[in-house]
Amino acid sequence: MGRPSLPDLVVLPLVQNALQEDLSQGGDITSAALIDPEQTSLAVIVARAPGRIAGIDCARLAFLQCAASVEFSAQCTDGEDVKAGDVVAKICGPTRAILAAERVALNFLSHLSGIATSTREMVAELSGTQARLSCTRKTLPGLRSLQKHAVLVGGGVNHRFGLGDAILIKDNHILAAGGITAALQHAHQHSGHMVKIEIEIDTLEQLEEALPAKPDVIMLDNMDLETLRAAVRMIDGRAIAEASGGVTLKSIAAIAGTGVDVISTSAMTMSAPALDLGLDFLQDKPS
Amino acid sequence: MGRPSLPDLVVLPLVQNALQEDLSQGGDITSAALIDPEQTSLAVIVARAPGRIAGIDCARLAFLQCAASVEFSAQCTDGEDVKAGDVVAKICGPTRAILAAERVALNFLSHLSGIATSTREMVAELSGTQARLSCTRKTLPGLRSLQKHAVLVGGGVNHRFGLGDAILIKDNHILAAGGITAALQHAHQHSGHMVKIEIEIDTLEQLEEALPAKPDVIMLDNMDLETLRAAVRMIDGRAIAEASGGVTLKSIAAIAGTGVDVISTSAMTMSAPALDLGLDFLQDKPS
Amino acid sequence: MGRPSLPDLVVLPLVQNALQEDLSQGGDITSAALIDPEQTSLAVIVARAPGRIAGIDCARLAFLQCAASVEFSAQCTDGEDVKAGDVVAKICGPTRAILAAERVALNFLSHLSGIATSTREMVAELSGTQARLSCTRKTLPGLRSLQKHAVLVGGGVNHRFGLGDAILIKDNHILAAGGITAALQHAHQHSGHMVKIEIEIDTLEQLEEALPAKPDVIMLDNMDLETLRAAVRMIDGRAIAEASGGVTLKSIAAIAGTGVDVISTSAMTMSAPALDLGLDFLQDKPS
Amino acid sequence: MGRPSLPDLVVLPLVQNALQEDLSQGGDITSAALIDPEQTSLAVIVARAPGRIAGIDCARLAFLQCAASVEFSAQCTDGEDVKAGDVVAKICGPTRAILAAERVALNFLSHLSGIATSTREMVAELSGTQARLSCTRKTLPGLRSLQKHAVLVGGGVNHRFGLGDAILIKDNHILAAGGITAALQHAHQHSGHMVKIEIEIDTLEQLEEALPAKPDVIMLDNMDLETLRAAVRMIDGRAIAEASGGVTLKSIAAIAGTGVDVISTSAMTMSAPALDLGLDFLQDKPS
Amino acid sequence: MGRPSLPDLVVLPLVQNALQEDLSQGGDITSAALIDPEQTSLAVIVARAPGRIAGIDCARLAFLQCAASVEFSAQCTDGEDVKAGDVVAKICGPTRAILAAERVALNFLSHLSGIATSTREMVAELSGTQARLSCTRKTLPGLRSLQKHAVLVGGGVNHRFGLGDAILIKDNHILAAGGITAALQHAHQHSGHMVKIEIEIDTLEQLEEALPAKPDVIMLDNMDLETLRAAVRMIDGRAIAEASGGVTLKSIAAIAGTGVDVISTSAMTMSAPALDLGLDFLQDKPS
Amino acid sequence: MGRPSLPDLVVLPLVQNALQEDLSQGGDITSAALIDPEQTSLAVIVARAPGRIAGIDCARLAFLQCAASVEFSAQCTDGEDVKAGDVVAKICGPTRAILAAERVALNFLSHLSGIATSTREMVAELSGTQARLSCTRKTLPGLRSLQKHAVLVGGGVNHRFGLGDAILIKDNHILAAGGITAALQHAHQHSGHMVKIEIEIDTLEQLEEALPAKPDVIMLDNMDLETLRAAVRMIDGRAIAEASGGVTLKSIAAIAGTGVDVISTSAMTMSAPALDLGLDFLQDKPS
Repeated sequence: MGRPSLPDLVVLPLVQNALQEDLSQGGDITSAALIDPEQTSLAVIVARAPGRIAGIDCARLAFLQCAASVEFSAQCTDGEDVKAGDVVAKICGPTRAILAAERVALNFLSHLSGIATSTREMVAELSGTQARLSCTRKTLPGLRSLQKHAVLVGGGVNHRFGLGDAILIKDNHILAAGGITAALQHAHQHSGHMVKIEIEIDTLEQLEEALPAKPDVIMLDNMDLETLRAAVRMIDGRAIAEASGGVTLKSIAAIAGTGVDVISTSAMTMSAPALDLGLDFLQDKPS
Repeated sequence: MGRPSLPDLVVLPLVQNALQEDLSQGGDITSAALIDPEQTSLAVIVARAPGRIAGIDCARLAFLQCAASVEFSAQCTDGEDVKAGDVVAKICGPTRAILAAERVALNFLSHLSGIATSTREMVAELSGTQARLSCTRKTLPGLRSLQKHAVLVGGGVNHRFGLGDAILIKDNHILAAGGITAALQHAHQHSGHMVKIEIEIDTLEQLEEALPAKPDVIMLDNMDLETLRAAVRMIDGRAIAEASGGVTLKSIAAIAGTGVDVISTSAMTMSAPALDLGLDFLQDKPS
Repeated sequence: MGRPSLPDLVVLPLVQNALQEDLSQGGDITSAALIDPEQTSLAVIVARAPGRIAGIDCARLAFLQCAASVEFSAQCTDGEDVKAGDVVAKICGPTRAILAAERVALNFLSHLSGIATSTREMVAELSGTQARLSCTRKTLPGLRSLQKHAVLVGGGVNHRFGLGDAILIKDNHILAAGGITAALQHAHQHSGHMVKIEIEIDTLEQLEEALPAKPDVIMLDNMDLETLRAAVRMIDGRAIAEASGGVTLKSIAAIAGTGVDVISTSAMTMSAPALDLGLDFLQDKPS
Repeated sequence: MGRPSLPDLVVLPLVQNALQEDLSQGGDITSAALIDPEQTSLAVIVARAPGRIAGIDCARLAFLQCAASVEFSAQCTDGEDVKAGDVVAKICGPTRAILAAERVALNFLSHLSGIATSTREMVAELSGTQARLSCTRKTLPGLRSLQKHAVLVGGGVNHRFGLGDAILIKDNHILAAGGITAALQHAHQHSGHMVKIEIEIDTLEQLEEALPAKPDVIMLDNMDLETLRAAVRMIDGRAIAEASGGVTLKSIAAIAGTGVDVISTSAMTMSAPALDLGLDFLQDKPS
Repeated sequence: MGRPSLPDLVVLPLVQNALQEDLSQGGDITSAALIDPEQTSLAVIVARAPGRIAGIDCARLAFLQCAASVEFSAQCTDGEDVKAGDVVAKICGPTRAILAAERVALNFLSHLSGIATSTREMVAELSGTQARLSCTRKTLPGLRSLQKHAVLVGGGVNHRFGLGDAILIKDNHILAAGGITAALQHAHQHSGHMVKIEIEIDTLEQLEEALPAKPDVIMLDNMDLETLRAAVRMIDGRAIAEASGGVTLKSIAAIAGTGVDVISTSAMTMSAPALDLGLDFLQDKPS
Repeated sequence: MGRPSLPDLVVLPLVQNALQEDLSQGGDITSAALIDPEQTSLAVIVARAPGRIAGIDCARLAFLQCAASVEFSAQCTDGEDVKAGDVVAKICGPTRAILAAERVALNFLSHLSGIATSTREMVAELSGTQARLSCTRKTLPGLRSLQKHAVLVGGGVNHRFGLGDAILIKDNHILAAGGITAALQHAHQHSGHMVKIEIEIDTLEQLEEALPAKPDVIMLDNMDLETLRAAVRMIDGRAIAEASGGVTLKSIAAIAGTGVDVISTSAMTMSAPALDLGLDFLQDKPS
C-alpha cells in the first residue's frame, strides 16, 4: 500500500517512442552485421554508483519490446537503494534484442534513478520536521509522468500535474482580478469542488489579505527564513504553507525548520545528474 | 553557413506533445477563472544566469501554438551567449495564451540552454588542441533531436543518431565475430559505403590488431593519459582517435592534450543542470 | 473572466480525427462528382430547437481544416441560449469545403450543445439553493475534455478529470485499508498537497467515522432526502457535501433542498439528447 | 454467420485512448495510496436495467490493457438481451487493474448498449413490414465505428460510413449540377462501379424526374405518410425507398407501413440514453 | 465538376510522415553545413519524360511544410499530360527549405504520376468500348488514398476502398455459405442498403446460378475471351460485368471488346514505373 | 551473421497502419455476413512467379494482428529464392482473421519481394567485379525502412537513410559555398566524425579539384564509360567511386566494368514490378 506505480499503458508509448528514435532508421546495423540472430546472452544491469532506483518498468518494457522471449528479472523495485556493484536486473534472451534495447533501457533508468536519488537526498534533510518535498511543473517535455513518478519514488510528493488540476494564482492573475481578495473569490466561484486553490504570496501584507479569502495552499515565494517563520505563524494551520525559491541541498533543512508544510523545487526534475548504471554481459551462448 | 538548425516540422510535434501534457486535461483553469480572454500582455524571457542559448524555436512554437496572434520576437539566436539580465525574447499577445505556453517554452529553453552551456564550457577547455567534443546515444528519451542540436549549438559535434547510421563494434560483437579482425572484416562486408565503422578498444594490443583492418574511427575506452598518448602515436592518422570514459570538466583538457581527435561524453545530455531563465510580464493591457 | 474555454490545441486533434473518419477513405466523392472546385457558398448554422450552445470552436476548426479560406463567423458564443430559428454561425467559402466539414461540425455542435442544454435545465432547478451541479468520470470515450467543457458552459462544475487528480475512496478502498479511518489516514499520507480527498459514504454511521479523519469532500451515495438532511447537519461545514445517485430533472430540486453543496450525475454526459441544429445554404455563387 | 463484429485492431486504439484520458496524468492515485499491488479480486459487470448488450470487446480489452493477467469472462455476447440483475461479464485479476479499467469499460459498454437497446426498440416496431432501420453519418466524433457496430447489434443496418463510400445527392448538388437528371448523370459518370448512388427527394415531382436517371436509392425526406405511400408506389421497386425525417419510436411503425424499404434516423447514435450497468466486487482476496 | 481531388487534411499527414523519414534524425546536415539560412532560390520541377501528372498537392504541401514562406506555383494540375521538358511547378523560397522538401516532393509526384500515366495508357486502349478500367485493393501499404486518387486522375475508376464498403464474395465465402445462391442471399440479408454486392465467378455454370440471386456486380475471373463474351451475353445487363485476371497493356483492348463493363487490374498500383521528374535550380540569390 | 532484419517494433506500426486502411471503416463486411466466427482454415502463400522473398515479417505480423491465435509458419526466410509454385508460408487459424489479413500481407510481401527480386537481378550482373549496388533516397513515402531492407535482402547496399546521416554535396551546395574545395572544407569542419562526406562530380576537372579536399565518397554522375574509367584511375583508391545515372539491367555490367566501387540507382525502389504471390485455402474446417 502506498507504493507508487504507473500503469504499463502509460509507460509503454514512451518506451516505444524512445526505441523508435534509436531503431526506426535501419535497425541496429552493427548487430545485423555481426551477431547471429539465434545467439542468446545473459546480461545484468549493474549500479556503478550508489543511489535510489526508479524506472524498472521502463527498462523491462524496453527489452520486451525488442523480443517477447526476453526474460527480464528485476532484482530490485522502484524505491530501493543500491550501492555501487549491486545488480538491478537480469536479462536473458536473444543477444540482438538485448543490444537493441540496452541504451534505451539505461537512458530511462539512469535518468529516473537520478531524479529519485536527488529527491531522496533532499528528503533526508527534512527528517525531524513536518515538511514534505514537492516537485513543480518544471519538467522535461514529454517526460512529466515518469519524472513525477520518480519524485514519488524518491520520497517526495507531486504538485499540479498540469494547468487543469488545480488553481495557482500568481501576480498576473491578481493584477487582472483587481487584487488578492477578488482573485480568490473568483477562483472559488469558477472552479469545481475537487480542485485546490493556491495563491503565491511575496510579502506578509499580501498574506494577511489572502488568509480571510480561504486559499487551500499558500506559496511563500522567495522569502528569507525569518519571514517564512512569521508567515507560518500567521497562517497558523488555516492553509497549507508551501515555501518555494532558493531551495538547495544546503538550504533545505533550514527552510524546513521554519515550520512550512511543503517545500517545492525543480532541482530534481530539471537538473539532477543521471545515476551511473551499466549493462554487463555475463556469458554468451553462441548457438 | 554552418549554423545548425532543426526544421520546424521536427520540433513542432515535440512542442505540441509538451503542451498536451500541460493543457489536455481541462486547459488552464486558473486563467479561465481569472483572466479576461481579450486581455493582452507584453512579456519578456530573461536570463537569470549566464549561459548559451539553445531552443529558441521551441519557445517560439510553444507560444504560437497557444495563439496564432502572438508576436514572438527573438532577441538572440541559438548559439548566442547571454549574461544574467539579458532579454532572450519578447512576446506580445493574449495574456491567456502567454500564460498557457510559458512553462512549456521555458522548460524547453532552460533544458536545451543548459546543455549548450555545459557543452560550451567543456569545448572551451579544448582550445589549443585539435580535439572536438562529441555527445553519445545517452540522451533523454524522446528528446534526442533537440539534445543533439543543443550540443551543436554549444560547439560540440554529434556521434551516431541511432543504431542505424554507423557501425560501432563493442566487446560483444568482437566475441561473437571471433576476434577484432574478423569483426571489422564482417563490418566492411555487410555495411553500406556511406556508414563509418568504429571499434571500441581497451588495450594497445587490441589497437594493434584493429589498425590493419581499417576502422574509420577507434574508440579508446577508459585509458589513462599515457596509454592514450601511445594509442594516438600508434594510430598515426590512419583512423580518427576518439577518447571516452572519465571525461569531466576537470579532466578534459588533459585528455585533449594527448592528441586525440574526438572526446565523447554523455555529461551534457544526461546530467547538465538547466539554465535559469524566467518570464516577466512588462505591462498588462486589460481590455 | 470566468468564461470557460478550451485551447484550440486541445480541440484540434479531436476535430481532425473526426474529419478523418468522414474523409480519409476517398474524400467526398459526391462533391468531387458534382461540385465545381471553384464554387463558393454562404451558409448558416441554424438552431432548430431552443437550447444552450456549446462547441463553437469545434465547428469553426472543422470548417477551417477543410479550407483555410473559409470565413467562419460565430453569431453566438459558447454559453448563449438560442431559440429555434436563431443563427449560430455564418460560413462563407468554397462549397466543397463547406460540404466536407458540415456533418462533423454539426455532430460536435449538436452533441455538446445537448450537454450544455441538459446541464442548464438541471442547474435551473437549483436556483435558490447553494447546491452546484457536477458531472462525473462517466463520459463518452475520447470526448471527456469537450464534454466537461460543455458542462461548464451549461453552468455546472467538473468533478475529477481522471484518476490522477483527486482521491476518491470507495468501498473497495475502505475494505482494503481496513476501515474508513485507516483509509483516510493512508490517503492523507500518500497523496500530494494539491489533491483533494473525497470519501464515499452510504450511512450516517460511516459518516460519523469519516468526519474526524478530515476528508475534503464527502460523497453521500444514494441516500433518501431525510438522511441527506441529517448528513448535511452532521457535516456542518467541515467538508463539502456531495449527493449522488438517483438524480433526475424531477428529483434534483428536492435533493438541493437538503442543503448539500454539490449534486453529481452522469445524466448530461451519458444520456443527453443532441440539440437539433442544421446547416442551410443561403446562396450559391457558381463561378 | 451474420454476426457483426469489429476486429480488435479497430477497437484497441479507441480503448487505449480512453484509458489514457483516465490514467495518463499520474495513474490512479487512489489505488496507489490504498490498494496493495498484490491484491486480487473477483468482480462482475451487472445490468441494472433491461437492454441489449453491445461493446463486450471494448470492456474486455480495457481490462486486459490494465493487466495482461486479468481473466475476463464474458457471460453474454453482443446482441444478447439482458434483464436487470443479469451478469454481463466476470473479471478476475489484480484489484488495481480492475479499478483502473472499470470506468472506461463501463463507459463503452453502457453507451454502446444504450445504442443497441434503442435500435432494438425501434426495430421491434418494424415487425410485419419489410422496412429496415438505418443509422446515418450523424455519429459522435471518434466513435463512428463503434456506434455503427452497435446499430448492427441492435438489429439495424448501416448507411454510408463516410463521404467516400457512396454518393448521396442533396439540394446543393442538384443546384450545382443544373437539375436532378444532370446530377444523376454526372454521378453515374464520375463514380466507380462499386458505389451506390442515392438522391434526396422532397416532392413527388422531383421523384418523377429522378427515376428515369436510375438512382440506386431514393431518400424521401420529411414526407407525410400519404406522400410516402404515393412515392413507394411510384418507385415500384425500381430503387430502394428510404424514408427520413421525423422518425420517432411513436412514428416509426406508421412510416414502415407505407412500404418503404429503409427508415433512417440519428436518434440512436446522437440521443440514446446509456444503459445502466455497474461493476460489483464479489470477494476480495487481500494477499 | 468531376475533377477528383483529395482534401489537404487527408494528404498532409502522409506528407508529414514522409518528411519525418527524411528529416527527423538530425535535419539536413549538408545544408546546415553549406547553405546560408537567408539564401533564397527559384527552382522548377521539370518532366524528364512524357506522362500524366498526379500528386501536385503532395508536392505543394511538402514545400510549404518546410517553410511557410515558400511560394509554390503549380504550372499544371493533376490530370494534365506533359512532355519531356515541361515545367510542372515553380518554387521560390529559402534554399534550405527547397532542398529539404525536394526529394519527398519528387518521390510523391513521380510515383503518383507513374500510376496516372500507366492508367492513362491502359484507358486509351479502351476507347470505342464501354469498358472502364478499375484498380483493386492491391495497393502499397499506407498509400491507398493517394494511389486510388492517381488512378482517377489517369482516367480509371476505383474499386472498393477497404473491406467495409462493399461485399465481394469469393470461393471461401461461397464454400462457407453452402453455395452461390445461399451466399448471395446471406449477403443481401446481412448488408446495408448502401453497399453493392459483387460475386467472383470462374465458370458459366456458376454465373448461371448467381444471376437469379441478383448480385450488383459479377467478377469474371481469369476467363478467356470467348467465355467472357458468353458471360456478357448471359448477364445481359442484369448486373455489371467485371473482367479480372491477365490484364496487360497488350490484352486489355481485346478484353474490352468482349463487352464487359469494367476491367480491373493491380498493374498500375503495384507495378507502374515512376515518371521521371527532376528539380532544377534556375537562379540562386545568395543573400 | 550478416543477415539483415528489421525489428518487429519498426515493422509493426506500418502493418497496423495498412490494416487500418483496410478494416477501420466497418471491418470486413463480407466475412461478417458469410463466415462463421468459429470457422478455422489452413492456407498457404504461394509464389506464382520466380523471385526472391522479402517481407516475411510483415506478412507474419499482419496475420497475428488479426488474431493472436493464428499460427504463421514461414516456409522460407527473407533472402531465399523461390520458383513458381513454392510455398512461402503456411497460415492456420480463424478463417475471418486470415481473410482480413490476406490482402495486407500480400501487398507487403509482393512489393518487397519485387524489390528484392529486381535488386538481385542487377546484382547478378555485377559478378566478377568489385562493384556493389546501392539504392538512394528515392523511395516510396512511408516505406523507406522496408524498401531499404528489401534492397539488402536482394544483395544490394543502402545509401543514406535520410538527410541527417551523411553529407552529400551537390551543385547548389558547391555554388553556395564558392567552389568545390571550399564546400568540402566547410563539410569537414561542420560535420561530426561519424558521418561520411560525398560530393557529386560531373567532370574530370571537378574531380581533380575535389580529390585533395578528401571526400570519403565521390559520386560520378551521368558519365560515359570512358570518363568513368578515367575517373576511377584518377581517384586511385583515395575515395570510394560511386557511379550514378543511366543505370539499367542492360547497362549495369558495363558500368561495373569501369572499376567503380558502387553503382546507385532508384530503379528497384521506385519502379520494380511486384512479385506475383497468392494465398490459397487448402482446407476449410467449418466448426
